[in-house]
Amino acid sequence: MTGSEAREERVLEAVGQRRELVNDAIPEELPITDPERLYEASRYLLDAGGKRLRPTVLLLVAEALADVEPLSADYRSFPSLNGSDVDVMAAAVSVETIQSFTLIHDDIMDDDDLRRGVPAVHREYDLETAILAGDTLYSKAFEIMLDTDAQADRTVRALDVLATTCTNICEGQALDVEFETSSDVLTEDYLEMIEQKTAVLYGASSSVPALLLGADDETVEQLYGYGIDVGRAFQIQDDVLDLTVPSEKLGKQRGSDLVEGKQTLLTLHAREQGVDVDSLVDAESVEAVTEAEIDEAVAELEAAGSIDYARDTAAELVESGKERLEVLPDNEARHLLEQLADYLIERGY
Amino acid sequence: MTGSEAREERVLEAVGQRRELVNDAIPEELPITDPERLYEASRYLLDAGGKRLRPTVLLLVAEALADVEPLSADYRSFPSLNGSDVDVMAAAVSVETIQSFTLIHDDIMDDDDLRRGVPAVHREYDLETAILAGDTLYSKAFEIMLDTDAQADRTVRALDVLATTCTNICEGQALDVEFETSSDVLTEDYLEMIEQKTAVLYGASSSVPALLLGADDETVEQLYGYGIDVGRAFQIQDDVLDLTVPSEKLGKQRGSDLVEGKQTLLTLHAREQGVDVDSLVDAESVEAVTEAEIDEAVAELEAAGSIDYARDTAAELVESGKERLEVLPDNEARHLLEQLADYLIERGY
Repeated sequence: MTGSEAREERVLEAVGQRRELVNDAIPEELPITDPERLYEASRYLLDAGGKRLRPTVLLLVAEALADVEPLSADYRSFPSLNGSDVDVMAAAVSVETIQSFTLIHDDIMDDDDLRRGVPAVHREYDLETAILAGDTLYSKAFEIMLDTDAQADRTVRALDVLATTCTNICEGQALDVEFETSSDVLTEDYLEMIEQKTAVLYGASSSVPALLLGADDETVEQLYGYGIDVGRAFQIQDDVLDLTVPSEKLGKQRGSDLVEGKQTLLTLHAREQGVDVDSLVDAESVEAVTEAEIDEAVAELEAAGSIDYARDTAAELVESGKERLEVLPDNEARHLLEQLADYLIERGY
Repeated sequence: MTGSEAREERVLEAVGQRRELVNDAIPEELPITDPERLYEASRYLLDAGGKRLRPTVLLLVAEALADVEPLSADYRSFPSLNGSDVDVMAAAVSVETIQSFTLIHDDIMDDDDLRRGVPAVHREYDLETAILAGDTLYSKAFEIMLDTDAQADRTVRALDVLATTCTNICEGQALDVEFETSSDVLTEDYLEMIEQKTAVLYGASSSVPALLLGADDETVEQLYGYGIDVGRAFQIQDDVLDLTVPSEKLGKQRGSDLVEGKQTLLTLHAREQGVDVDSLVDAESVEAVTEAEIDEAVAELEAAGSIDYARDTAAELVESGKERLEVLPDNEARHLLEQLADYLIERGY
């Protein structure tokens, strides 16, 4: 087993252990009550699975800050740095609830049929119910975050992060849509867009526990930066994987972003290098494209240095994120957060 | 001028004065920033008008509680009952922002083309933008409510009301959709549904200023009850007006609820009295119905006592709401809140 394989194993174990606890907490925080159909639709994607990476980050940050042995303290009454105990599990579920709300509404906007191997909520139910289910999760996430028993001033700051994060996600999604029909997007615009669309929720996941537990401002800021760096790296890695992982492992056609004309850090870099990105793939649909055509396109991106550029950018972000963790005590939970950052760009799919 | 006309004039003046101030505050709290199209879509309905009844209730409650001459204190730094000043105007804009978000999403769900005399947001823009504009207003409402300078513990309670209110509105909307295809809805189910769908936002409008300014729990509770009573009365009166006001004054076909088979307190009462409600109107569409047919249906509802029942129910709610205002000091702002309640069921349209 290589060092990277051993690390991956440790990270996946840490994520898996917390995922189970988060999965238990979701029905506690979001019980199916009247009107049942609304709550079933709201829970549909949450129950369909998901890695729970964001809640895991949140719980690991809490453990690192409190300097406790991982999994030794009760997440439901977790020791704050000063003052009374905090229900950090509620905060973790709140963040996952926001994630699920954005997925439901995004699937409507992108008219996607499938998510996590099951029909999108607007397909399984209907458009009205999907909009309403997303809206319900939205306010529930705030209700849950208001219920962590943290000091009022800390709760206010955590809610401020949560509300700003949601606004940023909407802005990022609007930019993403705008970019689809825009021909002069620069790599820096793209990095800004994925910060808003994807990375801010990682920023919330890593800073909210610090706020709730009463960490100082410098710690809060560095932890927020960790989430932003790691979240951006995660998104860039997704773009790389779309081109480099065999279709059967990816669970969808390799290179689908290219076929659909989606702008990514790779295509934007290639365009800046003079590559005629729009002609990289001729096929009009994911069904019509051949592996040979994708291979050729990837070779061209490779030659332009775009794949290396994306990998390097992601690696730099991960390094930056890991450095920020130096505000944390040197303990096992912090090491897991470092390894989680590495894993995000080393993962095969 | 009758007593009721004089009252209506005073109420409309009080609403109009506050509406202007709210209209000035909206662009301050929700400036058009990048991405511009998203923020323009978010502001579209807010800028198209609206009576601003909910913000008016919120501002009048603040004035009554603080026992100040109406319009004499700055809403942006309003004296709390104990402690530092509060920006109650921000709270008023927050409540109106929630209202606007629900309208945008409701219009998508009901596939309505027009709102406030302008195209619905999903018609003026598109479905994606309308979903996203509503989502943006949602988080902005929380951001704005977090920014009133109220004490942290009071802010937490106000946000709790806001989040619970949003959840209730979603639940109410889901029930409303459910009722459309249900044949055994009772008048009490309907009253529960409109409490969730409509009245809770009035409840938030009347209780949030009490929370932010530091009123005692009994006052908060009675004020919340005032909003619930008045909000329910408002909705019932809307149902009555749909049948009793001439089409040209109503701005839409009189009796359109009946034609569309919408259940209201009137039709549910009539059904409980043995009236065959489904056969009241034969016309299949609002375009095809005749005034004579509506007249006949109204006469039947009248004979079943359903119109009186709805009017009496609304009047009782208004009386109950006014009684709850006795927790407030006896002053001009409180009288305006009493008159506002009366106006809601006396208004002609």
